[in-house]
Amino acid sequence: MGSAINTLIQNAQIITMDEKNPILKGDIGIKGNVIEFVGKSNSFTPDRVKNVNGNIVMPGLINAHTHSPMTLLRCYADDLSLRDWLFDKIFPAEETLTEQDVYWGSMLGCWEMIASGTTAFADMYFSNSGTARAVMESGQRANICRALQCFDDCADFEKDSRMRQALDLYSEFNNAAQGKIIIDMSAHAVYTNTKKYLKFIAQTVEKLNCGVHLHISETRGENVDCVKKYKMTPTELFESCGFFNTRTIAAHSVYLTDDDISIYKNKKIHIASNPTSNLKLASGIAPIGKYLNEGINVALGTDGAASNNNLNMFEEIHLAALLQKGVNENPTEVSAFEALKMGTVNGANALGIKNCGILRRGWCADLIIIDTDKPHLTPYYNAMSAIVYSAQAADVDSVMVAGEFLMENRELKTIDTERVKFETKKIADRFASFI
Amino acid sequence: MGSAINTLIQNAQIITMDEKNPILKGDIGIKGNVIEFVGKSNSFTPDRVKNVNGNIVMPGLINAHTHSPMTLLRCYADDLSLRDWLFDKIFPAEETLTEQDVYWGSMLGCWEMIASGTTAFADMYFSNSGTARAVMESGQRANICRALQCFDDCADFEKDSRMRQALDLYSEFNNAAQGKIIIDMSAHAVYTNTKKYLKFIAQTVEKLNCGVHLHISETRGENVDCVKKYKMTPTELFESCGFFNTRTIAAHSVYLTDDDISIYKNKKIHIASNPTSNLKLASGIAPIGKYLNEGINVALGTDGAASNNNLNMFEEIHLAALLQKGVNENPTEVSAFEALKMGTVNGANALGIKNCGILRRGWCADLIIIDTDKPHLTPYYNAMSAIVYSAQAADVDSVMVAGEFLMENRELKTIDTERVKFETKKIADRFASFI
Repeated sequence: MGSAINTLIQNAQIITMDEKNPILKGDIGIKGNVIEFVGKSNSFTPDRVKNVNGNIVMPGLINAHTHSPMTLLRCYADDLSLRDWLFDKIFPAEETLTEQDVYWGSMLGCWEMIASGTTAFADMYFSNSGTARAVMESGQRANICRALQCFDDCADFEKDSRMRQALDLYSEFNNAAQGKIIIDMSAHAVYTNTKKYLKFIAQTVEKLNCGVHLHISETRGENVDCVKKYKMTPTELFESCGFFNTRTIAAHSVYLTDDDISIYKNKKIHIASNPTSNLKLASGIAPIGKYLNEGINVALGTDGAASNNNLNMFEEIHLAALLQKGVNENPTEVSAFEALKMGTVNGANALGIKNCGILRRGWCADLIIIDTDKPHLTPYYNAMSAIVYSAQAADVDSVMVAGEFLMENRELKTIDTERVKFETKKIADRFASFI
Repeated sequence: MGSAINTLIQNAQIITMDEKNPILKGDIGIKGNVIEFVGKSNSFTPDRVKNVNGNIVMPGLINAHTHSPMTLLRCYADDLSLRDWLFDKIFPAEETLTEQDVYWGSMLGCWEMIASGTTAFADMYFSNSGTARAVMESGQRANICRALQCFDDCADFEKDSRMRQALDLYSEFNNAAQGKIIIDMSAHAVYTNTKKYLKFIAQTVEKLNCGVHLHISETRGENVDCVKKYKMTPTELFESCGFFNTRTIAAHSVYLTDDDISIYKNKKIHIASNPTSNLKLASGIAPIGKYLNEGINVALGTDGAASNNNLNMFEEIHLAALLQKGVNENPTEVSAFEALKMGTVNGANALGIKNCGILRRGWCADLIIIDTDKPHLTPYYNAMSAIVYSAQAADVDSVMVAGEFLMENRELKTIDTERVKFETKKIADRFASFI
């Protein structure tokens, strides 16, 4: 999709995220699905004009690591360790999910993400054609991957249903929705796969020349077990199996050794850090200040709603700015601008979306409008601080992707929210009976 | 004030915060300003009935440490250390504030707090008659204190204008608004007072037999300097000066020694922890899990909007539940229930509000209604987890204090919000000219 209409957004406080001119007052002209100008123009002829009366306009937020259908398992099991939560609660519940359940779970996720200002997301799950169908309808951008898990070295990898699902997903949806959908390959983690299968996945990636989305070093225990079994860290194991030669999203990356960091730098691996989920599952706090100083591209994700328990990128940006300051007792670490970069343009780079995440001529017309007529945004002296430290997701008034409004004046344009509530309630009732 | 009307709230998912029966479905009957029943009753005759259609009803949130007029300095100076921020930016700006400015700043704070579900707050500032006037109008409960600071041992303490302000505040407003306002005394901190003056304040407290609100051990540096100067920690210094013999709110308490913890336990000192502000100003992370295990009453506060940068107690409750898990790599530390206790009944105890913070017969009719018809609250399997991990402040639909709705269906009942915006904008324009 994408819009064929020219839109003029007038009278905005613009957070461009452009290093040279990060905040300015003015207008934004949108021609079809790209930005024509930011600031002022006398020659732009719009089909429609939207006066935002001094509200903040900024790039849409990008969620670089989530599992959108897990909205169905929101507040299903809390206050447990990653292993207990995953193997005893989540995996058994997920066993029962159909492709249609995944569709409705992702649709709920798309609704929640649009309502909270997220214009693009990286989604790792299974039965992902359901997710792809939801995204085609919602109008967002997404990078979707089938999380591959295999413990059986005797299996015929070529014919394995999970790998078939991954390959079918790629052939059917990569570059779909006028390029708004990207399909990556995925190995779930080192602890859910054999080395032999990891190598097979890496070979498939080489053949397709596609991006990769992995969980790496989420917990201290994952590293300990991996080193014990393979005499390598998860990063080293993935590299030894042939990964990292294409664009890679490494979710979590809480515990990286200095050697791991060197590999991340050399291979230009993108980190998708998940501050809330890492705290909630007691995994720890990723040293993202250090990673940023090393020049690694760090993006932010919510992880799934079962371990967060929402898909609210405002909270992740907020935490990214706060945590490093507190933990390292250094108030200058991760400024508001750096935190917002992580939630916007760094995410676009991680997902492989070109020219996205900065409001700049020729770049994607993916933006959000923030209603500043709120007590908690009254007064504010700096728009970027206001977004990072004061705002909440409900302040998002309108959301545009590729020149098209997916939400306007808080009204969803592409999603039948009553239907989503009805269908997801039926699925949730089924899960509730297991508890 | 307080209501003379009997209200029946029907069809609620009730988070009572009562240990024996924390979550139940049913109705709540309110007779005047107290709760008549929670659950079911056949004999209650209401004057009005409010069917909340399955929405969550829970005790109002209690902000145990803030400086409400600092809403005027929201996003005024960020990413600086506590000392630079306080002495170079905040104190000079505050020098110019009049009592009427304080009134408007507090009124903005009351608006923000009501809109985000806070029914009572502890406020430390100066020119507090402005704050007291705002609170009388807003209808909330508040514990207000004049922060005393004095470096001049030659001053006539009795006649000092700051002490006069504190005493006048006490005589004019303690127990005002039908007991909804409580006045405490306050020494700002050990680093803003001489020992002689601290003793004088403690003597005044003894005479009045009133509560006390202090900043204690907010930063590592505060402890180091205090030990260097007095050979005592801030807690030991306050105790040696005669404090802690009445109800005491000790804000921050990030760095307590084991001896300090013993004093807190013996003297039943209430901690008002401020997770966001401590992270943002790089003070650190208070070990509240440890304090709770020691049996200390730990409440939560936002601190001022200049170091947060909002008065959103949902964020503090969220962080209280998340931080200890992540830092101590223990997912069972600070459960959702414990975090909510900190944000409700523990706060009431700290502020000295009797029978408040639990929905229970005979207790204060201070409650909030949460609109769960939101994508990020769809579905949810556990109401307490939903509030702590998924909700945001904007989900608060209605707020009742002492049986009276201060906000209903998100409409403010007691505050002229347009006037507040107009007046605070004028003050903010003055501050903006200093930057």
